[in-house]
Order: sequence, then C-alpha cells, then structure tokens
Amino acid sequence: MFKCICVDHVGIACKDLDAAKKFYTEVLGLSCTGEETVEEQKAKTVFVPCGETLLELLAATAPDSPIARYIDKNGQGIQHLAIRVDDIDAVIAEVQKKGAVMIDKEPRGGAGGMDIAFVHPKSVGILLEFCAPHKKGL
Amino acid sequence: MFKCICVDHVGIACKDLDAAKKFYTEVLGLSCTGEETVEEQKAKTVFVPCGETLLELLAATAPDSPIARYIDKNGQGIQHLAIRVDDIDAVIAEVQKKGAVMIDKEPRGGAGGMDIAFVHPKSVGILLEFCAPHKKGL
Repeated sequence: MFKCICVDHVGIACKDLDAAKKFYTEVLGLSCTGEETVEEQKAKTVFVPCGETLLELLAATAPDSPIARYIDKNGQGIQHLAIRVDDIDAVIAEVQKKGAVMIDKEPRGGAGGMDIAFVHPKSVGILLEFCAPHKKGL
Repeated sequence: MFKCICVDHVGIACKDLDAAKKFYTEVLGLSCTGEETVEEQKAKTVFVPCGETLLELLAATAPDSPIARYIDKNGQGIQHLAIRVDDIDAVIAEVQKKGAVMIDKEPRGGAGGMDIAFVHPKSVGILLEFCAPHKKGL
C-alpha cells in the first residue's frame, strides 16, 4: 500500500511569471528557486518554497500549452495539486483498482527531477498529480 | 516583519462532499476531520490532513455561497490557497504598504478556529488567504 506523504506542490497558472515572482518574493518575503522550462508541458516553471510545500508558478511558452488552455478557460488560478507519495508505481496501480481513472498509466518525468502521474479530473473534480523523487538507476 | 510558515490549507470546491470525502479516504487512504458548517461562508467544510497541509473540502450550503458561485463559473476546482503566517495583523498591514489589495482589512474568524484574511485576486491572480491561530484572550 502506498502512502501520501505531503502536499509536494501547488501549481499556479500565471499570465505574467515576472509579476507573480515579484509578489511572492517582494511582498511575501519568500524565495524563488529552480527556474526551468519543461518542454513536454510547454511551460516555464519557478518554485517558491513555503514550509514543506512548493508553490509552482507556471507560465505557458506556447499557445497550445496546457497552462495557456487553462488560463483561456478559467483565467489565472490554481491549476493543480500534487501529493508526494512514497511509491508512484504502487499509487498508479492501486487507485486504478479502486476505480480512479489515471491520465498517466505510467510515471513520466516532471520538473525538479520528479516522477509524476496525473489523475483524471473526472475521478476527483480537480487536476490531481502524484509525484515521487525519481528512483536513481532505474 | 511577518513570516510565511507553510501552506496551511488548500481549499477545494466540491459539488458532492461525500463523493470527495470517499475519494480522499477510500482511494488515497487519508483521513477526514473537523466537519463543520461556516455560516458566514455558507459552506460545509471537511479537513483532510496531508503532511503539514490540510486539504479543505468545501461544499456550498446555499446557491449564493462563494463556493456555489465559484463552481457555477469554473466547475469544481481548487478555489483558494492559504498560507499560515506568524502574525496576521502584521501581514495585513505590510502587504498593503507594498501595494497589495486586501479583501479583508481586519482578520476575521474562519474554520478550525483560525483568524483569516483574503488578498484580492487582482493582486496575485489567485484567491490567496493568510491565516494564523486565533490569539486567545484577544
């Protein structure tokens, strides 16, 4: 049986990444780290650590990016929630056995060197991600 | 200067509170706690602890509840993010000095015995809440 460890990160869809970074750093006094482009998601990401959770600021790098589509539909907002688990293969297998529908039936690479897998929103009403540190050597 | 401590909770707008509770408990193996009705928000809330963060499942108790309005506009989703701070009066004063617009210019009572204050979404693009345990005797 897998275990949910913590809220690893909260994905925030931003129109203007620099304005968002400025708010979290200059107004709230937090720091930014690990700016990177995730080609597969057509998104630029920046992490803002807050306790054990990261705020993942996300901006689209192309009009057909999932982030651009989210903003077109909903405006800026909290796009997804990621729960860190101890065993990503176990969680994918077990939640499907219990009737949940996974978008990703195999883990794939996400930002920050994590293995990630998304649950279909129809199963839980939000875009929920599971993530776990990539197992080295596998 | 105030300090941001952690992501205290993530507010999730649910159409069907029982179905959501069932997912987080039966599929993910988490537990539910502190079911209460917050009259002021016309919402029923349940907390699902996950690491140091609570997932706050929210369902409307009236058609003019902020949760009902959120779901009418966006569908189910992650409605707000709450950062726990060490001093809620200081955060309200200081972020306004730095140009942020607060919905709540004074702290008010929220679920779980916390003092809360919301930032206007136009300042940060999401519905951001600050919260701190209520100071006893004040």
